[in-house]
Amino acid sequence: MKRTDLTWGAPQTERADAARNRQHLIATAREMLAEVGAERITMDALAERSGLGKGTVFRRFGTRAGIFAALLDDGERAFQELVLAGPPPLGPGAPPFDRLVAYGQARIRFLMEHQEIARAALDGRQPIPAGAQTPLSQTHIRMLLGQIDLGPTNLDLLAVQLTGALDGPLLLYMQPTAEAPLSQRVELLLSESWHDLVRRVCRP
Amino acid sequence: MKRTDLTWGAPQTERADAARNRQHLIATAREMLAEVGAERITMDALAERSGLGKGTVFRRFGTRAGIFAALLDDGERAFQELVLAGPPPLGPGAPPFDRLVAYGQARIRFLMEHQEIARAALDGRQPIPAGAQTPLSQTHIRMLLGQIDLGPTNLDLLAVQLTGALDGPLLLYMQPTAEAPLSQRVELLLSESWHDLVRRVCRP
Repeated sequence: MKRTDLTWGAPQTERADAARNRQHLIATAREMLAEVGAERITMDALAERSGLGKGTVFRRFGTRAGIFAALLDDGERAFQELVLAGPPPLGPGAPPFDRLVAYGQARIRFLMEHQEIARAALDGRQPIPAGAQTPLSQTHIRMLLGQIDLGPTNLDLLAVQLTGALDGPLLLYMQPTAEAPLSQRVELLLSESWHDLVRRVCRP
Repeated sequence: MKRTDLTWGAPQTERADAARNRQHLIATAREMLAEVGAERITMDALAERSGLGKGTVFRRFGTRAGIFAALLDDGERAFQELVLAGPPPLGPGAPPFDRLVAYGQARIRFLMEHQEIARAALDGRQPIPAGAQTPLSQTHIRMLLGQIDLGPTNLDLLAVQLTGALDGPLLLYMQPTAEAPLSQRVELLLSESWHDLVRRVCRP
């Protein structure tokens, strides 16, 4: 029993260590992001600045893009909370169509605020992670589509396409802009356009 | 006049050299792609295999992703020809809605055939190229939307969103598959889903 206890004990300690390292690395990456910008964040630079070994950084993130995926994931938690349990129409309690409009508009805002990180998390050398890069978007859009009467249609693929319509512009085609008024204008136009798109897709 | 002639002469020679180098590098990259796979193509490996200097490879492509962007661009030329001057409904001569359906289906086929290269051309560390990564898709979809009576709508943004709906699934979310029957099934489903999406978007 003692040996079993030890066996159970060891990984737990390791997991706590690993979690601490991960948090420390993410905090360090956030500092670097604010101070020197995304471009200067590399596996080596993060290891040096954090005082942890390169091996640890590699095990936590796999690739440079993995650092940004972790930063994005961290930022997505608060957003996810609002979607799952915040006030309607983003949160539960509003009709599914209104939630779909609100979700897209909130996601556009989130992506515009995190565009640099979200872009830097893209790495075509890496395989697409199982469950895709925006599991929340796809799953949530799919769920809402299922609550709207759309007639016979492949809801899974429609959800993937609408996720692409939402993420594609900011991840693949549109340059980020640092000018606040222009950026607000782009956000407004994209939000209106998303509303128009889902209105067209969902009308009976 | 002689000096002017010489001045005109020199860049021309240089351009011919540059074009030759580019073609040689693309041919070499294609060989490597077939023999060792995309993963093993790096700036260094391409320089070594082509017998050209690293500086030349860097000047031609900028980054590793740039090599794949050039390979993709090369493959896109034949596709572009079919869209601009091939038989209808992909080429000119069919109603704009039919061309929009046919364009999406052809683009899905093209992306599925070139998914590895298209993914490897993504590099979030690089700024989004001016004119975006799929200038043909956006421009062509925008042109066709302009010929369909859609009522008041922002056609430019709708075109960007539909391009995202077309590219997003294969570039961002869906794992490539090497099994031919599964791959054909995915292509068929995506094509049907694209048809459904544009039918919904374009109905009066």
